[in-house]
Amino acid sequence: MTAVSPLAPKAFPDLPVVAGVRFAAHECGLRYRDRPDLLLAEMALGTTAAGVFTRSLTASAPVLWCREALAGGQARALVVNSGNSNAFTGAAGVASVERTVKAAAAAVGCAPGEVFVASTGTIGVPLDDGKITAALPGMIATLSAEAWPQAARAIMTTDTFPKAASRTARIGGVRVTIAGICKGSGMIAPDMATMLGYVFTDAKIPAPLLQRLLARGADRSFNAVTVDGDTSTSDTLMLFATGQANHPPVTDERGLGDFRRALEAVLTDLAHQIVRDGEGATKFVEIRVTGAASARAARRIGLAIGNSPLVKTAIAGEDANWGRVVMAVGKAGEKADRDRLVIAIGGVRITENGAAVPGYDEAPVVAHMKGADILIEVDVGVGRGRATVWTCDLTHGYIDINGSYRT
Amino acid sequence: MTAVSPLAPKAFPDLPVVAGVRFAAHECGLRYRDRPDLLLAEMALGTTAAGVFTRSLTASAPVLWCREALAGGQARALVVNSGNSNAFTGAAGVASVERTVKAAAAAVGCAPGEVFVASTGTIGVPLDDGKITAALPGMIATLSAEAWPQAARAIMTTDTFPKAASRTARIGGVRVTIAGICKGSGMIAPDMATMLGYVFTDAKIPAPLLQRLLARGADRSFNAVTVDGDTSTSDTLMLFATGQANHPPVTDERGLGDFRRALEAVLTDLAHQIVRDGEGATKFVEIRVTGAASARAARRIGLAIGNSPLVKTAIAGEDANWGRVVMAVGKAGEKADRDRLVIAIGGVRITENGAAVPGYDEAPVVAHMKGADILIEVDVGVGRGRATVWTCDLTHGYIDINGSYRT
Repeated sequence: MTAVSPLAPKAFPDLPVVAGVRFAAHECGLRYRDRPDLLLAEMALGTTAAGVFTRSLTASAPVLWCREALAGGQARALVVNSGNSNAFTGAAGVASVERTVKAAAAAVGCAPGEVFVASTGTIGVPLDDGKITAALPGMIATLSAEAWPQAARAIMTTDTFPKAASRTARIGGVRVTIAGICKGSGMIAPDMATMLGYVFTDAKIPAPLLQRLLARGADRSFNAVTVDGDTSTSDTLMLFATGQANHPPVTDERGLGDFRRALEAVLTDLAHQIVRDGEGATKFVEIRVTGAASARAARRIGLAIGNSPLVKTAIAGEDANWGRVVMAVGKAGEKADRDRLVIAIGGVRITENGAAVPGYDEAPVVAHMKGADILIEVDVGVGRGRATVWTCDLTHGYIDINGSYRT
Repeated sequence: MTAVSPLAPKAFPDLPVVAGVRFAAHECGLRYRDRPDLLLAEMALGTTAAGVFTRSLTASAPVLWCREALAGGQARALVVNSGNSNAFTGAAGVASVERTVKAAAAAVGCAPGEVFVASTGTIGVPLDDGKITAALPGMIATLSAEAWPQAARAIMTTDTFPKAASRTARIGGVRVTIAGICKGSGMIAPDMATMLGYVFTDAKIPAPLLQRLLARGADRSFNAVTVDGDTSTSDTLMLFATGQANHPPVTDERGLGDFRRALEAVLTDLAHQIVRDGEGATKFVEIRVTGAASARAARRIGLAIGNSPLVKTAIAGEDANWGRVVMAVGKAGEKADRDRLVIAIGGVRITENGAAVPGYDEAPVVAHMKGADILIEVDVGVGRGRATVWTCDLTHGYIDINGSYRT
């Protein structure tokens, strides 16, 4: 179970410094041993913040705190622990967040409302925040702008590899950097160990604008991947802009096209890594839906395919069982024309006129199914809406990991 | 894979004759060998019909036929084959249905609009209806009111046991019989082998009233079970009333209370058997949701729990992982009060005030998880809506069956 996913990138990427951000990782022993489990990120004065959070109605105490703090739009510190999610911990959980925030604000020298927190791991167990608050003051001395690998490792739970990505972009001719880390071994990992993502840039972008960019980028990246269709109580994606880059002021989205594309590339890269570390995954699956009534309809159809246990087990079994894709399109609840539905796997067109293509030769599709990267294309024949969704296969590994996580 | 489910009933039930219905089963060799794969049911003149069908937008040709035929409200024949679902077979599939209907109408001596059909099995493969139409005339001679076991077997695909149930009821003091069969090894079995259910009664009930009774009954039975959340292209549930019983005429639901309860009992019994034959199932799970904003909201919450791969794998692993139930309630998208959420497993209350019950003792819950029948109760604390949903666990068996169905 600790073997690295066969779909993992070959190496941890070489991440650039983002001016105005420094990291410290620490082993405070909440659950794991011999690895860091606490991350502190310190950000320069003037850093703006944006965030998107789980829509779960049983969201964790840290998520509730972040949603409120985000109203201020400013960030100076981020504290993330792994090993305990501080979810479903009642009033005690709220008090833990308050003590953690207070300690981080004192250590960094900022207001509590500029501190963001997250917890990931087992749920329903009170968080021993004393270990966190005791560690924070000493971590200030170890802050480093280059500690990306340590930062990425500190937030891992059942992840089999640390996840990071970066891009550069130009704003008004000036080069800016976008870099981030994330964790997650499933749309939700066991016990809501969940998805967390933190992206940093040295660009100077007002908080409301930053929020719009992040929300749109998340929609096409983190909101377009699924491992098991389960939604965590703690899912968090944040973007911090330190404003250290020397580009002309921006007040609206004009001139941010290159930044937006680079941000989306970072978010997509990170989201793909989560799928590649999906619990038990042996195949990375891209599902491209076209011809839907709207982009939203296309994504719902894509997720219906990507979440179908029958589609996912067929992929695990390297079975070119396109009938299950037909089924998933049918159950999505979005407009589709059965007789104009075109399904292609690995670039090979399989259906037309409401039936299999005459003389359909399965051989090249079977060969494609044996690879690690699977492409499923579906045109539902009713409009111009399109979306791409990514998922992994459903294997015995998933059952092994999730049938015995706590025992 | 051919072993009988550990959750199967001990024996096939002893089903009563329903006056006005006779069955013939035949081996026509569409896919299976050494077992019947074709069912003909003949019903008395004056039989009324009701049906509920899949909501899939890629519904099969037989489903489309039945929906149309149902407008007439009369039934004289039912033809069901297993081994090929005649789904996603284009114009050829429609022609197959027409030839089958015509042959059955000729054999029984009725109008085509009084013939109902269904096909279950592999999809996307043209149906060799010649084998069916050739067999039908000869099957007339073998019709028998007592051939329930053969009828139940003829419609099986990956089912590991035949499924049937019956009850009696009184209408105006006169005893009537309700008996039926169904098949399905999952909400959808592999390749849309799907769920089919046929229930017969000797009561005399007008078609519109029969339809209302069936729709309501299906809602609390077949629409409240899930194995994998996938929806078939062929799901069909029909109720036929032969009118042979000598009770006073009924024109509305008054006086049908006992019938309605008995019908619901038959439907629920059949639906439970499908869950008990769920692919790879080792546990039968009842999920009772109370305190929801509405009955509909309660069912959506129940299905979110019952469809969650993380909940289902935890049950397979006999892990009392109640945190995953919290997660599933949160993701259901229905109103719930995290701080009033009460979760009980095996009758043991686990949560209150947004956290675990102080001093929660897991021992009795762990013991309950080791049994074959699991009870999860959830009160979401916002209203009076309630619903019960049934599901099974998600095991290696499911992956085995579905990763290699066609190969």
